[in-house]
Parts: sequence; C-alpha cells; structure tokens
Amino acid sequence: MSNAPISRHPVPMQDELPEDVRARIVEVQEKAGFVPNVFLALARRPAEFRAFFAYHDALMLRDSGLTKAEREMIVVAVAGANDCLYCFVAHGAILRVYAKNPLVADQVGVNYRKADITPRQRAMLAFALKVAERSSEIGDDDYAALREHGFTDDDIWDVGNISAFFCLSNRMANLIGLRPNDEFYLLGRVPKAK
Amino acid sequence: MSNAPISRHPVPMQDELPEDVRARIVEVQEKAGFVPNVFLALARRPAEFRAFFAYHDALMLRDSGLTKAEREMIVVAVAGANDCLYCFVAHGAILRVYAKNPLVADQVGVNYRKADITPRQRAMLAFALKVAERSSEIGDDDYAALREHGFTDDDIWDVGNISAFFCLSNRMANLIGLRPNDEFYLLGRVPKAK
Amino acid sequence: MSNAPISRHPVPMQDELPEDVRARIVEVQEKAGFVPNVFLALARRPAEFRAFFAYHDALMLRDSGLTKAEREMIVVAVAGANDCLYCFVAHGAILRVYAKNPLVADQVGVNYRKADITPRQRAMLAFALKVAERSSEIGDDDYAALREHGFTDDDIWDVGNISAFFCLSNRMANLIGLRPNDEFYLLGRVPKAK
Amino acid sequence: MSNAPISRHPVPMQDELPEDVRARIVEVQEKAGFVPNVFLALARRPAEFRAFFAYHDALMLRDSGLTKAEREMIVVAVAGANDCLYCFVAHGAILRVYAKNPLVADQVGVNYRKADITPRQRAMLAFALKVAERSSEIGDDDYAALREHGFTDDDIWDVGNISAFFCLSNRMANLIGLRPNDEFYLLGRVPKAK
Amino acid sequence: MSNAPISRHPVPMQDELPEDVRARIVEVQEKAGFVPNVFLALARRPAEFRAFFAYHDALMLRDSGLTKAEREMIVVAVAGANDCLYCFVAHGAILRVYAKNPLVADQVGVNYRKADITPRQRAMLAFALKVAERSSEIGDDDYAALREHGFTDDDIWDVGNISAFFCLSNRMANLIGLRPNDEFYLLGRVPKAK
Amino acid sequence: MSNAPISRHPVPMQDELPEDVRARIVEVQEKAGFVPNVFLALARRPAEFRAFFAYHDALMLRDSGLTKAEREMIVVAVAGANDCLYCFVAHGAILRVYAKNPLVADQVGVNYRKADITPRQRAMLAFALKVAERSSEIGDDDYAALREHGFTDDDIWDVGNISAFFCLSNRMANLIGLRPNDEFYLLGRVPKAK
Repeated sequence: MSNAPISRHPVPMQDELPEDVRARIVEVQEKAGFVPNVFLALARRPAEFRAFFAYHDALMLRDSGLTKAEREMIVVAVAGANDCLYCFVAHGAILRVYAKNPLVADQVGVNYRKADITPRQRAMLAFALKVAERSSEIGDDDYAALREHGFTDDDIWDVGNISAFFCLSNRMANLIGLRPNDEFYLLGRVPKAK
Repeated sequence: MSNAPISRHPVPMQDELPEDVRARIVEVQEKAGFVPNVFLALARRPAEFRAFFAYHDALMLRDSGLTKAEREMIVVAVAGANDCLYCFVAHGAILRVYAKNPLVADQVGVNYRKADITPRQRAMLAFALKVAERSSEIGDDDYAALREHGFTDDDIWDVGNISAFFCLSNRMANLIGLRPNDEFYLLGRVPKAK
Repeated sequence: MSNAPISRHPVPMQDELPEDVRARIVEVQEKAGFVPNVFLALARRPAEFRAFFAYHDALMLRDSGLTKAEREMIVVAVAGANDCLYCFVAHGAILRVYAKNPLVADQVGVNYRKADITPRQRAMLAFALKVAERSSEIGDDDYAALREHGFTDDDIWDVGNISAFFCLSNRMANLIGLRPNDEFYLLGRVPKAK
Repeated sequence: MSNAPISRHPVPMQDELPEDVRARIVEVQEKAGFVPNVFLALARRPAEFRAFFAYHDALMLRDSGLTKAEREMIVVAVAGANDCLYCFVAHGAILRVYAKNPLVADQVGVNYRKADITPRQRAMLAFALKVAERSSEIGDDDYAALREHGFTDDDIWDVGNISAFFCLSNRMANLIGLRPNDEFYLLGRVPKAK
Repeated sequence: MSNAPISRHPVPMQDELPEDVRARIVEVQEKAGFVPNVFLALARRPAEFRAFFAYHDALMLRDSGLTKAEREMIVVAVAGANDCLYCFVAHGAILRVYAKNPLVADQVGVNYRKADITPRQRAMLAFALKVAERSSEIGDDDYAALREHGFTDDDIWDVGNISAFFCLSNRMANLIGLRPNDEFYLLGRVPKAK
Repeated sequence: MSNAPISRHPVPMQDELPEDVRARIVEVQEKAGFVPNVFLALARRPAEFRAFFAYHDALMLRDSGLTKAEREMIVVAVAGANDCLYCFVAHGAILRVYAKNPLVADQVGVNYRKADITPRQRAMLAFALKVAERSSEIGDDDYAALREHGFTDDDIWDVGNISAFFCLSNRMANLIGLRPNDEFYLLGRVPKAK
C-alpha cells in the first residue's frame, strides 16, 4: 500500500532541491515526524512550491478572528465538497489535533450540518461552501449573515480566501493524484496516554 | 460608472503600503498605463498579495510548452465557467493583446468549442475546464488525451495548475466583488494605427 | 478568420431567396452596414425565417414597459446562461448601442449581479434567468417580486417571453454552430467622434 | 377542477380577437372538438400568437424525413425534460393519436430509453434532449451519430429546431401556468370502437 | 408490444416459487385482475421479495395522518423526479383510483406545483422531493414547515420514509428495466359505468 | 458530545419493544459491544424495523460473487455520494474490519478513483454510483462493462440492489438526523495487538 506512487508526476530527490525548499521539508519532518506528500510532490517546481506555502501560511498562520481549528474546518468541508482525498485526510488529521476532537473532521467533511459545532461555525461553513461552489452568487446578504454571527469583514475575507485557496489546492491534488500519507488517517483519533 | 467601488473591502492608500508592494504597483502602472484593480484590492493584505502574484508569475511567466496566449486562453475559459467578471474582462484583454486577435477572448470565454483555435488548443481547454469543474474525475485517460496532442507531462501540469490557480482567483474576485477597470473592455480590440 | 463557415448547414444564395426574405435581408444590411449571419443561416427555410423574425419583432419592437436596452439585457444574460456565442456577441453589440454604454453587455452576459444596472433591472434579470433555467419552478412569488419593482403583468409576460424566445434562438445558434459576424465584436465599444 | 384558471394572465373574449386569430381558433375547435388552452392563452397577444403558430406549423406540418408521430415524440420527451405539464399532456395525446399507440407517450415523456421505439428513434430523442439541455456542447460528432441512423442534415435541423421551439413553448407554458384541457388526458388511450 | 421482456433478468416460473411468494402473487392477481410486473421480477429473489413488500406494506397500509391517495402522490412525484417509468405508470394508476381523480397522477408526476391539490399536499410533496433529491440538506426548518400545515412528527416520518423507500424502488426498476404492465396506463382514467 | 440526541424522533425504551426487535438489538450488542444507533432509532416502528433489517440481511449476508468487504465498499461509496454521515462512519468501520485495511474506507468514501482497490472493484463502484445518481440512464452497456470484469448477472443485481437499498437508508438517516455512535470512528483503524 505504502508503495503506491504519491503523484502522477515524478518526485524530486532531496539533493535536487534548492536549499530553502529542502529546509522547509526538513522543518515539517521534524515537527510532524514524517513529510506530508504535498511537500514532496510540489517540490519539483520550487517557484510554485514557495508561492503555494507562502499563501498557505499567510492565511493559516495569521492573527485572525478564526481559531486555527475553525480554519481547518473550512479546509475539510471544502475538501469534502471537491472530493479531494488528500485534503480530506491530511487536514482532517490536523483538524482533529487542533480541535482536540476525534469526531469533528469526519462530521465536517461529510455533512457539516450534522457536526458537533456551534451555530456560528455552521454559518461560517455554509459561507465557505458557497464560495467553493457558487461564488458568483455571493452578495451583500451573505456578508450580512456572517456579521450577525459576530464575524468582522476581515474574518469574512479569511473564510472566503481559505475556501478559495483550498479550491486551488484540491484541484492540484486531484490533478496529480496526490496520495495522503498513511500516517494521517489515524492522527488525532486516539487520545494520548498521559 | 468609474466611481463604483472596486471591492467590498476598503482599498489601502498608496502610502500605507509596504515598499515592495508599492513598487510592484508602480511597475504595472508604468507598463499598462493604469493599475489593474486586483493589485489595489489585494494590497490590503501584503502577505497574501506577495504570495498571489508570486504564484501568478511562477505559472504565467515561466518557460513552458504553452505560449503566453495559450495560458491566457485557459484563464479566460475558466473565468467564463466560474462567471468571474473581473478575469473574463481583464484577462480577455491580455489574451487579445498576446494573441493579436480581437475576437478570440469572447469566443473562448463564452464557448471554446466555437472559437478560432487549433484542435490542440481545444483539447487543452477541455482539460482545463475539467480541472475547474470536475477535478476529482481527472484520470490517466485525460493525461493520455493531451499527450496525443503533443503536450508533455510538464505542459499538462501547467494547464492544470493555471486552471486551479484561477479557480482561486475567480473565487476571490467574486467574493470581494472585484470590479474590472474600464480600460480593459476595449484593450486589444482596435488595431493600432501605424 | 472571416472565411470560417457561418453555419454547419449550407447558406442559400441571394437569388435563391423568396422576395420577402430577400427584402428583409436588404433592409437590415442597409441599416446595419452588413448582414448579421442569423439572417443568412435561417434563410434556407423561408417559413421558419418568417416566423422567427415575426416572433422577434413582436417581442422586441412592441410598446412595452421595458426599454429596448432592457430587452437586450435579457437577451445577453440568457445568452450567457446558455453559452451561446452568437447572441452573446451580436446582442451584446445591440445592447451597447441602445444603452449607450460600452461596458454593460459584458457585465450582464458574465454576471448580472455585478453589472452597472438598477435594482429593478437586476430583479428583471433574475426572473429572466429563472425562466431560462428552472421555468417549472416559476410561481406567484416570482410575479410578486417583479410587481414590487413596478413591473405590470404585461411587462412580466415580456420578460418571460423574451427569455423563452432566446432559449429557442440560443439552441438554434448552438445547433448549427452559427458564427457571429466579426463586426459585432467592436460595435458600440468606441464612442463616436462628433 | 375544470373551473381552475387556464393561465396566470387574463384570457381575451372571443369577440375581442382579430379575425384571423378567431378563425384559427374556430378551425382547431372544429377539428378537435374543443379549443386547446394554448390558443386561448396566447390570443391576448395576436402578433405573438401568429408568430408562434406560424413557427409551429412550419416545423410540424412540413414535408420531412420525420413522421408526424416522430416529431411529437420529440415534443413529449422535451416536455418531460422541462417538467412542462401542458405539453406533456397535450402533445402526449397527439402522439398517441398519430402513433396509434396508447403507451408510447408516457414512455417517451418519462424515460425514452425504456420506450417501445426503434433504435433510430432513440438516437433522435437523445439528440433532441442534448439540444434541450446542453446545446452548447452539440458538435460534429452528434451530427455524425444521427447520420449513421439515416438522418439527412435536413432531418437533423428538424430534430434540433423542434426541440428548440418547444424549449420556448415549455417555458411560456410554465411561465403563465398554462393548464392542459381535461380532454387531453384520455385522448388516444382508448381504442375506438369500430 | 406486450411481448417485450419485463426485466433484464429472467423471471421465475410460478412453480419455482416458494409458497408464500406464490400466495402473495395469487392474492394480488385476484384483487387487480392481473399480476403487476414488479411481483414477477422481484420473485427471483424470495428473501428480497419478502422484505421489499413487507417494507411497502408497513408504510402504505399503516394507520397514518396521510390518506392512501396522499401516499401515492408522494410515490408518483418521486417517480417523476427519478425518471422511473414503472412507478410513474403503475402508481399513477393506483393514485387515480384512490383519489377518484383521472388527472392528478399526470399532474403530480410532471410538476406538482401545477396540480389540483391542496396547499398542505403541495408542502408535503416539496418535502418528499427534498428527501429524494437533497436529503443531506433536510433540517429542522423543513420539519417546522410541515408542522405548520398540521403534520405531526409521525406524519413527517411517513412522508420521508415513503419517499426514501421509492428511491430504492425506482432505482431497482431502472436497474432491471422493469416494464409497466399495459393495463396500468388506462386504469382509473375512465369513470366506471354504473 | 455523546449526549447529543441520536435522532430527531424519540427513541423507544428497551421495555417498550416487541420481543423480536429487542432480541435483535441484544444480539447486535453482544456481537459489537454496543448498539448501533440505527437499531434504536428505527425500533420505534417495529414493522419498518423488521423489513429494513430483513432487506439488509438478504443483500449483505447472502452467498454472492461479491465479498462482504466489496459489499461494504458499495455502501461507503454511496454514503459519500449522498453525504450521509451515519453510513459513511458506521459502514466505514465495518469495511475497515472486513477488508482488514485501515485506509480503504476513507478512500472509497471520498473518491473511489483514488482508492487502493482493484480495477474490477473500481468498475463495480462506478456502476453502483450510477445506480445511486443517474439510475434512469442505466443500460445494457453498463451491464456489459461489468460482465467484462467477470461479474455475473446475479452479481450485477447485487451491486445495483445494495446501492439502491442504501439510497433508502441514507435518506432515512439524513431525514431523522441519525447520529453515528462515537465507537465507529476509530473501529478498524488500529491493528489489534496479538
């Protein structure tokens, strides 16, 4: 199983990589214990790699009215809508870890309406999915609906831009047939022994 | 007409911008004669601005088996599919200029099957639209179909990634209600006097 | 480019045409300076030609609560929804001329929600697109929504029937691969010198 | 039941009608034994009435490679696709009469793939429904598929134009809530006594 | 016509059937005067046959806030949505008989919004079709809408479960190409002589 | 989390249940270690409960050319298509156990094209999803495609009927908001210690 190719395109060898790309990969490996396949698959195009992760970090690491878990909820819901296996599984794991909740990722990925989340989060995900699926219909009413739940206009930008960025990401993963690392499937599901 | 807001979100003043962002805006203004609104609207988030244009440049300026006009065809066809007014109009203009063809942008944006393009370009746009609309169904057969038209796997990556990137871009433009500059509508339609 | 066939079906010679059909073609040529391809392509079936243009004139030339520009807005929005290149381009030109507005046709054709039009016109286009795309769901509520914007029941009939007629027209143009005349693309985009 | 309004819009009195419109109505009444509601509902706009029935007659009465029953099959299949009760019921009756077959109308209206028709007719209906539902995708391959079943290009024009015309007709009927006459439901279902 | 196969799969001979299955078939034949094809086609799998009709009877024969005619309205509307010829025709007949109304089945099957039914029944069918087509979006609001029309929660369960059961039934009929008996087409259309 | 209601409808107390229903619940509890919520939620309607599980057992326990794991693959793929959280999670667990594969359920539920399964299984799931989503288009070609992979006609009936049955099941679960037991999420993900 683990021998299946991780992408339709060849993956570069570590020593073919520019220094900064390699450094980023080493960094994530040290933190996670393994290298998520998206880093290896995108590394064959260093300029795109840098832009992709810069965009990712700008959205996912910035100070925001959304918690990190909420941002990952958006990612997982959008991955479900786009049938993107990589993001469903990989970001499902991250969501479980951030939310300290072993159930919420599957719930949000399959049908956020049934998830153990707050009404505010449900409104956020409805908006994110409208951006993903019918963005041309977004109007002032949609902004107003989120403001009623206490979202600022900057928060709304975050919701919409995270959805939009993962619409790119899901399409790339689907394009190249990106395979989720086996490790992601279990991550965050088993409470750590103390 | 020109007084309509260019975005649902406030646009920063020139002197509020980081030096590199301002420099990029000055550069495009000198080249185009005006500042495309996407630069002004995204500038309020410098980190996202930098990543967005780095991604754009990585795809659209790189050496590729696709001509620049072909890459803009992808952009315009995807904008049509996503009902994105900004990219339809702005990249329609760029396509007309690159292709030295005043008709092709409207053709490709409304229905590429009727456009004055080659069978190879038609296959390229069919693939790009599948990435935009049903990426989870992309399979080896789709790659094979492009290879038959002489596309390398690197070219296919370009086709798919450009489509994916503008799926992000179209959603952001739809989200914030980004208004195309009036100048774009006519650009490339009238042959230059000699 | 101009040598591409204008239809999948042969186009009759001028002298093969019945007198009234030829007269209509001469008339439009004198008025427009060229013969729109729809006249040439449909002329091979004189009875259908006569009925088609009689229907067109009955809707587009009658006294109505809708201005001629508003009627053309409906045509262009419906053409966008049906991906009909001929009507998008040809009626886009007519709309620009009637509205004396070089931008509005592209706006309405790609996404009327973003167009420089009045709320009344936006409601009109929402109704027209519902007739084009989900007519079986039209109900009294839809009529009520237009009445609130001051439309009479006769105006609503006009909105719906124009949408319905161009659903026919768009399908015929798509069926026969009707090519827009090159002249339409630029018409109404450049202010006339005085 | 029979007292329900036949249209959302008022229906003119016989003596308000122009002579030719009234004559047409009298003619159909003598032939059918009742006045199909579409004649009454459209009569309030004589110019549109004339064009509508001229178009109808041009397509449905002309010499064609399609039998009259085959043309009605197209109408009923398209009515099913557009959820148009009036045409499903009224043209279902006409189809039963022309085909001398009490079952075929319901079969074709609900799912032509299951109908007691020839492979040639099945290909014809597949084409007609593509014109009705995805006309922008019609291409040379679709023409070729019909030619293989012996259809001439003129026959194909008929198939497509009948489908397109009833896309107009279905939308008008749905718009105005046109009610089928009670008489149509049973017509052609019971073999005539001899 | 009547010689066409009733299923893609072979139909068992009467004497191959288990006693209880044969008894059920005899019973329906005595009641209806003929054996509806669904009994013959499903009989080749006695365990599934028993479960299918047990489920059917549990829903359609139980004491309920819905009349039997209302339950058949749900069946016919769902059959229309699923393009299921067998259920459209067979249950259309049953609906006409139960409702003593020769028109309502075609109306409900093609477009329930145009049918001669009560507002309460229209709300019921809107709910049933949402279960059939977008069940993942069913929420408390949908329950509330039915309660306003006087439906109890048990009634709502009935509406939803009947819709769900015929989504199974329609798919089985479509799968095996189940042919409606000729007798169903006319049943309930002609008032009985007294 | 575990205190959330398991259904929109009240769940009966154990001692309110008929003996056979209670026995079935006791049996599954002894086998699984907990009572899957579907048993509790459906128990309020004993006749439907019996028919539902009789149908389930007839399909899922019978001798078949499909392994039990393959049958669960169909269930999980269909649950994904119908956005049914209960079946995605509960049958995902059963699939992992039967297939002794901790990854395959998420793969098949999100996008079977990317799953670690055989080409034969991929063809089976393509067919099952066509039954779930477009059953009216199933034709002899679809049967032929499965026969090429060695499926008998009885196997094809199984594939189609399992898909159809879970289209019922998914709609019921979505209707009543059926909550998956927390236990299912982890089941089959962690290899048992030996």
